[in-house]
Amino acid sequence: MTVATKQIKRIGLLTSGGDAPGMNAAIRAVVLAAHHYHIDVIGFVHGYNGLVIDEYIAQSKRLNLTDVNSIIHQGGTILKSARCPLMMEKSGLHQASDTLVEQSIDALIVIGGDGSFTGLLALQALWQGQVIGVPGTIDNDLANTDFTIGFSTAVNTGIEAIDKIRDTADAFERVFIVELMGRHSGHITFNVGIACAAEQVLSFENFSQDDEEAKLQQLAEEIQQAQQSRHGSYIIVMAENLWSGGATKLVEQLKALAGIECTACVLGHIQRGGSPVAKDRILATKMGVCAVQAIVGGETGIMIAEQQGVMSHVPLEAAITQGKHVSSQLVDAQQSILALTAQTQC
Amino acid sequence: MTVATKQIKRIGLLTSGGDAPGMNAAIRAVVLAAHHYHIDVIGFVHGYNGLVIDEYIAQSKRLNLTDVNSIIHQGGTILKSARCPLMMEKSGLHQASDTLVEQSIDALIVIGGDGSFTGLLALQALWQGQVIGVPGTIDNDLANTDFTIGFSTAVNTGIEAIDKIRDTADAFERVFIVELMGRHSGHITFNVGIACAAEQVLSFENFSQDDEEAKLQQLAEEIQQAQQSRHGSYIIVMAENLWSGGATKLVEQLKALAGIECTACVLGHIQRGGSPVAKDRILATKMGVCAVQAIVGGETGIMIAEQQGVMSHVPLEAAITQGKHVSSQLVDAQQSILALTAQTQC
Amino acid sequence: MTVATKQIKRIGLLTSGGDAPGMNAAIRAVVLAAHHYHIDVIGFVHGYNGLVIDEYIAQSKRLNLTDVNSIIHQGGTILKSARCPLMMEKSGLHQASDTLVEQSIDALIVIGGDGSFTGLLALQALWQGQVIGVPGTIDNDLANTDFTIGFSTAVNTGIEAIDKIRDTADAFERVFIVELMGRHSGHITFNVGIACAAEQVLSFENFSQDDEEAKLQQLAEEIQQAQQSRHGSYIIVMAENLWSGGATKLVEQLKALAGIECTACVLGHIQRGGSPVAKDRILATKMGVCAVQAIVGGETGIMIAEQQGVMSHVPLEAAITQGKHVSSQLVDAQQSILALTAQTQC
Amino acid sequence: MTVATKQIKRIGLLTSGGDAPGMNAAIRAVVLAAHHYHIDVIGFVHGYNGLVIDEYIAQSKRLNLTDVNSIIHQGGTILKSARCPLMMEKSGLHQASDTLVEQSIDALIVIGGDGSFTGLLALQALWQGQVIGVPGTIDNDLANTDFTIGFSTAVNTGIEAIDKIRDTADAFERVFIVELMGRHSGHITFNVGIACAAEQVLSFENFSQDDEEAKLQQLAEEIQQAQQSRHGSYIIVMAENLWSGGATKLVEQLKALAGIECTACVLGHIQRGGSPVAKDRILATKMGVCAVQAIVGGETGIMIAEQQGVMSHVPLEAAITQGKHVSSQLVDAQQSILALTAQTQC
Repeated sequence: MTVATKQIKRIGLLTSGGDAPGMNAAIRAVVLAAHHYHIDVIGFVHGYNGLVIDEYIAQSKRLNLTDVNSIIHQGGTILKSARCPLMMEKSGLHQASDTLVEQSIDALIVIGGDGSFTGLLALQALWQGQVIGVPGTIDNDLANTDFTIGFSTAVNTGIEAIDKIRDTADAFERVFIVELMGRHSGHITFNVGIACAAEQVLSFENFSQDDEEAKLQQLAEEIQQAQQSRHGSYIIVMAENLWSGGATKLVEQLKALAGIECTACVLGHIQRGGSPVAKDRILATKMGVCAVQAIVGGETGIMIAEQQGVMSHVPLEAAITQGKHVSSQLVDAQQSILALTAQTQC
Repeated sequence: MTVATKQIKRIGLLTSGGDAPGMNAAIRAVVLAAHHYHIDVIGFVHGYNGLVIDEYIAQSKRLNLTDVNSIIHQGGTILKSARCPLMMEKSGLHQASDTLVEQSIDALIVIGGDGSFTGLLALQALWQGQVIGVPGTIDNDLANTDFTIGFSTAVNTGIEAIDKIRDTADAFERVFIVELMGRHSGHITFNVGIACAAEQVLSFENFSQDDEEAKLQQLAEEIQQAQQSRHGSYIIVMAENLWSGGATKLVEQLKALAGIECTACVLGHIQRGGSPVAKDRILATKMGVCAVQAIVGGETGIMIAEQQGVMSHVPLEAAITQGKHVSSQLVDAQQSILALTAQTQC
Repeated sequence: MTVATKQIKRIGLLTSGGDAPGMNAAIRAVVLAAHHYHIDVIGFVHGYNGLVIDEYIAQSKRLNLTDVNSIIHQGGTILKSARCPLMMEKSGLHQASDTLVEQSIDALIVIGGDGSFTGLLALQALWQGQVIGVPGTIDNDLANTDFTIGFSTAVNTGIEAIDKIRDTADAFERVFIVELMGRHSGHITFNVGIACAAEQVLSFENFSQDDEEAKLQQLAEEIQQAQQSRHGSYIIVMAENLWSGGATKLVEQLKALAGIECTACVLGHIQRGGSPVAKDRILATKMGVCAVQAIVGGETGIMIAEQQGVMSHVPLEAAITQGKHVSSQLVDAQQSILALTAQTQC
Repeated sequence: MTVATKQIKRIGLLTSGGDAPGMNAAIRAVVLAAHHYHIDVIGFVHGYNGLVIDEYIAQSKRLNLTDVNSIIHQGGTILKSARCPLMMEKSGLHQASDTLVEQSIDALIVIGGDGSFTGLLALQALWQGQVIGVPGTIDNDLANTDFTIGFSTAVNTGIEAIDKIRDTADAFERVFIVELMGRHSGHITFNVGIACAAEQVLSFENFSQDDEEAKLQQLAEEIQQAQQSRHGSYIIVMAENLWSGGATKLVEQLKALAGIECTACVLGHIQRGGSPVAKDRILATKMGVCAVQAIVGGETGIMIAEQQGVMSHVPLEAAITQGKHVSSQLVDAQQSILALTAQTQC
C-alpha cells in the first residue's frame, strides 16, 4: 500500500522475537540507506519493549554510521531483542504509538517473525506512520518470501553439528536422534536432513502427529532392518515441537518398544547465533536497503520479501496469515533419497 | 532432447575441470539414484583422461553404495579431476568414444564447467550414448542455471578469509586488495564484496579493462578521500584475470601513483576446497538424482539446472554459448551500498 | 618396564572407549612408524570387541599406508570404537589373549582412556606380548600426561558453541546454563569457562556435590545481583554428572526458588567429533610414533605421555590409579576472574 | 626486577607491532584485574604512536569494564596497532616519556613482539614508571616463553587453509607450495607442516639459505621420486623470508629445472586474524592478570611468560636477545615422519 508521500525525516528501527544471524547486517543496511536519503534512524532496544517500557524508551538512540561499522559479520542484534506481551494489550499498543509520536518517528521498520508482524499490524491501526516488516527468523516460516534472514546460517550450523555427531555415530555404529529448531515448520529439519545425509527425517511435512504410535512402530522396524542389512551409523533428524516429549522421549520409546539403543541430541540455541553465512548477509543487506527505499516511496503495511531472487513487497497480512510450507519438491527429494538408501545393502 | 528410451544398464560418471565442493555429493546422489533404478555406475578417474589414457582407463571401476557412504561432506572429488587437452583433438575424442563402447556405457554424466561441456558436446557427435552435464564449478559462470555446485561454498570461504583480514585491516587502518577466483566472471567477487562489506568491488561487471588507467586514478582518489574523511580499514575485492598483473601489480601502481600503502592478498586455491555448505550439498544431491532420472527418461544433450529453485533441463549448447552475467540487481545493490559508504564520515 | 628385546613383526592396534578427535592421526602415525621399522600393523575393529567377538575378529586386517593416507584431519576413528563389557570377565580376557596369539601379534597398542587401560593391564597378566597405551579421550582425565588426544578439540568445539549461544544471550540479556562433557572431571568445563568468559563455572574442582542446596541459594543470589547491577547475558558452564539432574534440573530449581528464567543447553556429542585442531594432530602424531619406538625398544606396560612438552613413558597403573586434577593455577585464575567480574558494574 | 612498591593508580596499555588473535583477551584481562585493584587503565591507540603523535595522544582514554565486555573472542585489537619508527629516535622516546608523565601513568603494559619490547627497554631508560611486556605475536619467536599470544590460532588457521588446498591437490594429484608466516622463525611452518601431513617442510631449522641450489636439486628429485612411486598430492609448506623470491619463485625454478608443475599459495594475512582458539584466549587471560599483579608487586623490566604451563617473569632483555628455536624434538619428529613417508609406496 502506498500512502501520500511526505518528507521522511526519522525512521524507527527495532528487532523483535527470536534473534537471527543477519539481523545486524539488516540494521547496517537500513542505517546506510537512510543516511543516503538524509533520514535519521532511531534504534529502539529490546524489541517492542523499547516502545512501551520507560526504562527502555530512555535507551533509544540515533544510530550513526560508526554504530554499524563492523557489525555485518556479527550474530545477535546490537538493538537487543525480546518478546513483548504488552503489545498484545490495548494499553501497550497505545503506549507504543505515543512513543513513536513523541519521538517524531515517520516510519517504523521491524525486523522479526510473524509474531512481530502481528504486533506491527495492530500498531498500524493506531498510529499514522508507515510500517515495514523485514523477515528475520531462523525458522523460514513466513509466506511469500523465499527466505528469511538467519535461516541459511541456522541450516549450516545444523550440518556442522551433525557432521561432528556423525564421527561418533560412525565410530560406534550408533543411532542418534537430533532435534532441530523451526518452531512449527520443518524448513531447517528438511534442509539439514538432506545436507547431512540423515537416514530419517521426521517433520511436520511427512508425518502427522496423530500417527505417533504407528510411526514409532515403523521407525523401530526401519532401524532394525537397517542395522541388520548394513552396518554403520543411523541419524534421525527431527523437528522440535513435533513428537510429544521430543527426542529424549523418542529415545526412551524406541528402547522400551524394541530394545533399540539411541542417543538424543537437542542442538538448541547454537542454531540461533554465530556469524551469518554469505547468503544471510547479502539477503539482509538487500532487504535493509529495500525497506528504506519502500519508505521513501511511500509504502506502508508491507513486508520486504525475496521472490525468485528479486526484492519485492508483500502485504503484511499475506506474510503471516498464510503458512509457508517446505517445498514439496524438497520433501519428495528427501523421500526419494530415503527410499534409495532404505534399500542400501552396504 | 529425448531419444527413444531403451533399457539403461550402465552409466559412466566423471568429474572434470577445476574441482568444486559438492562434487562428491553429486557423485553420491548419482550412485544412489542409479542403484534405485538397478543401473550400474562406472566411475572414470582424472576427468576425461579416464576415457583416453590407458593407465587411467584401467582404473575405472563400478561405484558401490559403500564407495559413496561418507562423502557428502567432503571437498574435492573421489573420482579425481583434470583438464584434458586430448579431448580437443579428434584422436582423443575417438579414443573416448571407443572406451565408452568397450565398457558398454549407455549414458555418460559429466560434472564440470563449460570446458567440460564443450568436450561432452563433441563426444556426443561421435558416440551413440546419452550425455548429461551437471554444472560443477565454483565460478558460477554457466548460463541458465541459478547456481552451479561449489559456488556457495567458495563465496563463504571468501568471506571467512576476509573477515580475518578485516581484523588486521582494522587494527592498522590499512588498505588491502584481495584477489578472488572466478575465471572471467565476477560472481564470487560481487557476492563476497557485499557480504564482507568491502569498500570497493573491482570486477568485470562494473569496470572495463580498457579503462585501467582512468580507474587507477579514480581508485587512488577514492582511497585518499576515504582515509581523510574517516579512519578505518579499506578493503578492495578484485576478480582474478581482471587487472593486468593482478592485485600485486595494483598495489605497486597505487604506491607509485599516489604513495598509498596497500597489502595484496591472493586467496588462491583455498577457495576450491573445503566441506561444502548446505546449499551446495542440497543442490548437488538434487542434481545428481535429476541427472539419473533424465537418463531413464531418455534425455540427452542437456545440462541439469536449477531455475528459480526448481530442477530443469537445459540444452548443453545453451549452457555454454551464452555468458552468464552477475545479476544487474546485485551489481546495482553493491553500487548503491558503495555510493552510501562513499559519503561516510565516521 | 623393558622386556628382553626380540624381533617385532606384528603390532596389533585398536581404539577403545569414547572416540576422540585425533585418534585417526594416532593410527596414521603408528602405521607410518611401523612401516619404517618393517613391522606390520593389524587393525582390530570396535575396540576390544575386535579381539573377542568372532564377527569382529574376522574383520581385523593389515593396515597399509594407503589406508591412513588422508585421515589425519578426520574425526572419529577408522577402526571404530566401543565399550566392551566382555573384557571385564575372565572368559573375555582369555579370548582376547587367544586371538592375539593366533594372529601372531607381538605387541598391542590401545588408544583410549582409563577403562581401556584397565583392560590392557588385565590382558597383560595373561598374554606374553608387549602392551602400550596411548591416551585418547576428550576428558583429559588421565594422570601423568599434560594432555590426552582429543581434549583440545573438545574445548574448542565448546567455545565455538558458546560463542554462538552468547549472541542470543546478549540479545535477550538472558541466563544460559550450558552443560559440558568431561565424565567426572572438569578439564573441559574449566577451560571452556575461562575461554568464553563464562560468568560462572560449576565443576568438581570448585564445588562439592554435598553442598547442592547451599550452592543453589548462592547461585540464585549471584545471578540476581548481577542482573541488578549490570545488564547483559549470564552464562554458567557446568560439568556433566555434577548436579543431580543436570542443567535441565538446575533451570527448574532456579525458577522455583527465585523466579529466575534460564535456558539449559546440553552440548552433548558434538564435543566428541569434528576435525582435530592442530594441537591434537601433532600430539597424536608424536604419540603414535613414540608408541612404536617404545615397542621396538622393548617397553611394555606403559602409557605414552606428554610431560612439559616432551614425550615420555608412564607405567599404565600410574595413569589410571591416580586422579588427574585440573591445575589449581587454572582454578585460581578462574576464581580470580570471577571475583573480578562479580564486582562489575557495567 | 622489583622496585620499591608505591601505590599504583594508573596503568597505561597499548598493543604494538603485528596484531595477533588474543590481544583483545589480554586487554580485557588487564582491565578486569586492574579494576580489582582499584587501578585505572588508560588505553593508548595505534601502538607507540599513541604516545608520540599528538592526534593519537588525544585519543587515549580510560578503559571501562563495558569497553572490554564482549571482546574475548574477537581478533585484532580494539586499541589498534602499528609499527612506530619514531620510537627508534631519541626525540620519539622523550616524547613518549613526556606523555606518560603528563598523564600520570605509573606503569606501562605493552602487548607485542620483540620490536615492541626493544622500544620498551629504551623507554625504561628514560622514564621512571614500571614497564611490563606481554608476548603477543603469531610468530612465537620470543625466547623463554613456551607460547606467545596468537601463535596457536595462526597455526590452526594454517591447517584449515591447507586442509582445503589438500582437496584440490588430491583431486589433481598436484604439487602445491604453501608459504606461511613466521618472520624469521619456523614455528608456524613446522607445526602446520606436521598437523596437515605436509610432504615437505622448508624452514630455517632444517635448511640453510646458503644451500638453495643444492636444496632445489634435492627437492626436484624427491618430488619426482614421490610422483613415480605413488600417486597423490604433494604439499610443501615453506616459511616466509626463507627462499629468495618465496614460493612463487620456487615454483618457477622447479618448472625450469625439472619440468615439475606446482602451484604456489601465499596464505598471507588470513593468518593474523580471526577469533582466537581456546589456547590463546586462556593464555592471554592469564598473562593479562599476571601483568597487573606484577605491577602491583613492584616488578618492572620484565616480560610475562608461560613456562611449562606456569606463569612466570622473564627479564625483557632475555626475551629479545636470545633467539627462540623450534624445539629440536619437533624438528626431529617431522624429519622422522618425512623419512617414513618418503618410503611410502602407495
